Amino acid sequence: MPFKIVGVIGSSKADSELFRLAEEVGAEIAKRGAAVVCGGLTGVMEAVCKGARSHGGLTIGIIPSWSKEDANPYVQIPIVTGMGMGRNVMVVMTADVLIAVGGEFGTLSEIAHALNIGKKVIGLRTWNLAKAHTKPIPDLVEATDPKKAVDLAINSISAKG
Amino acid sequence: MPFKIVGVIGSSKADSELFRLAEEVGAEIAKRGAAVVCGGLTGVMEAVCKGARSHGGLTIGIIPSWSKEDANPYVQIPIVTGMGMGRNVMVVMTADVLIAVGGEFGTLSEIAHALNIGKKVIGLRTWNLAKAHTKPIPDLVEATDPKKAVDLAINSISAKG
Amino acid sequence: MPFKIVGVIGSSKADSELFRLAEEVGAEIAKRGAAVVCGGLTGVMEAVCKGARSHGGLTIGIIPSWSKEDANPYVQIPIVTGMGMGRNVMVVMTADVLIAVGGEFGTLSEIAHALNIGKKVIGLRTWNLAKAHTKPIPDLVEATDPKKAVDLAINSISAKG
Amino acid sequence: MPFKIVGVIGSSKADSELFRLAEEVGAEIAKRGAAVVCGGLTGVMEAVCKGARSHGGLTIGIIPSWSKEDANPYVQIPIVTGMGMGRNVMVVMTADVLIAVGGEFGTLSEIAHALNIGKKVIGLRTWNLAKAHTKPIPDLVEATDPKKAVDLAINSISAKG
Repeated sequence: MPFKIVGVIGSSKADSELFRLAEEVGAEIAKRGAAVVCGGLTGVMEAVCKGARSHGGLTIGIIPSWSKEDANPYVQIPIVTGMGMGRNVMVVMTADVLIAVGGEFGTLSEIAHALNIGKKVIGLRTWNLAKAHTKPIPDLVEATDPKKAVDLAINSISAKG
Repeated sequence: MPFKIVGVIGSSKADSELFRLAEEVGAEIAKRGAAVVCGGLTGVMEAVCKGARSHGGLTIGIIPSWSKEDANPYVQIPIVTGMGMGRNVMVVMTADVLIAVGGEFGTLSEIAHALNIGKKVIGLRTWNLAKAHTKPIPDLVEATDPKKAVDLAINSISAKG
Repeated sequence: MPFKIVGVIGSSKADSELFRLAEEVGAEIAKRGAAVVCGGLTGVMEAVCKGARSHGGLTIGIIPSWSKEDANPYVQIPIVTGMGMGRNVMVVMTADVLIAVGGEFGTLSEIAHALNIGKKVIGLRTWNLAKAHTKPIPDLVEATDPKKAVDLAINSISAKG
Repeated sequence: MPFKIVGVIGSSKADSELFRLAEEVGAEIAKRGAAVVCGGLTGVMEAVCKGARSHGGLTIGIIPSWSKEDANPYVQIPIVTGMGMGRNVMVVMTADVLIAVGGEFGTLSEIAHALNIGKKVIGLRTWNLAKAHTKPIPDLVEATDPKKAVDLAINSISAKG
């Protein structure tokens, strides 16, 4: 049986509050026995891996560069792509569901790729895309805290399976 | 000397008004001696190639599938990637500047990738991202008509060169 | 600490002897505490994952299609790329060292990518490239059996680290 | 109608004889009205573009890096991928047929990808793969000079179309 995999996306720069939020997201994912996939670098990506490892979770980092040395120290499985931001597509495709924590334009590209293929995105202080669109976006749901974000994420995987 | 290359992004489904807008964008690009790059398929992508060819312009289509038969009939240079939506990144990187005509989530991913690397995007009835963001987005500029969109695009290339 | 990752490459069709060889390779990798990365499909890829799982090893499959359902049943971590044979490059880059078991042209592409970046390849009944080249190829070494192949592979990782 | 596109692959380092061969290949392709696609860099890639441009041919370079400034000066259409050697797959897929001039491991990866999808490769002093294989390889044909290589290449496209 493959692991359930929750993708966590967010900026490589995170202030202390976003870092703490992402760390809690990682911890909650690990508590539920799912693996984390992320872009493998710093900021939100490092926080979520740190949180997951603190609870024995499995962490996968899909690295944009050619070097696994670029992975943050909490990544257990660095997938080396050498594809730059092209790796964002793979984070989206590998995840069963996504949680966006904060985020700038790179995160927005991942949200857009996810919505493009009908994959659910749970947001924590992330892009409020409905404001920029002419239609509601049912696959993008804002959560109020890390625990609820992970609940929504895991429920959405279970509903599919 | 390499060609100046204007990327045009937009949905594979276009109503008659969007199709006409994209066709005019293609024609205006060709009149200025620049090449068009797009995703090579239907809708806005087909319209911009058709418009460019009607004025003798060069058309490049970066195809998501494994088959150049999937290119629209106005693509002269089909680049076959087999990368699915991963090819969106390459449309963005190959273009010197981008014009977004309408657009759904695929187009949004391209706008996001462009803004992520500081590449200018001119919009025609496309995502009004500033509404969904906490900061202004100077690299995303809305134009009122195809001619002005292409003027802005070409000027932005010249300013860089 | 990231896992040590051994890449195993080979054809999606394997006769019973190649299947058994690849299964033993997987088992030997697992016994040494390293993870397996492969292309995730059938044949040699399935055999190595089956062998690794039978000894509690961790298995990563880098899938060419858009669907993790295409992974063989022994893959625990399916990385979904949607990149077709472009994913071969990622198998090579993600592995710390490669073992080629048999193999046709897809495997040859992976051997070539590995040699191109100076990554070691241990061969088991695979391409004898030295015969087709004008120079010796020190990074491509033939092993006589699965245990020796994995010994050579693990030693080459330890020498680097 | 899309252009006929001949892919030319070979090392980024070329001695004067290989450079001259590749330049003639480019010239012969241009004389037949086909476009050249290559990896866009130096050596054989530069020679074939130079030869094609000297006869008014169209030149496409699929660049591994993030910067079109890395293209050789004879590339008219730089396709920017940021994918490193992953772009080799795209050179193969975009070409209707391939000519390999000399070549090291990067070229070998391209030959292997081509043979893997049944695409014809004409060789000029390149890998003699039949020596390393257990079966004949009908899709890999050695030519004696540039003119004959291009004749074989163009004939193989016409046979398909």
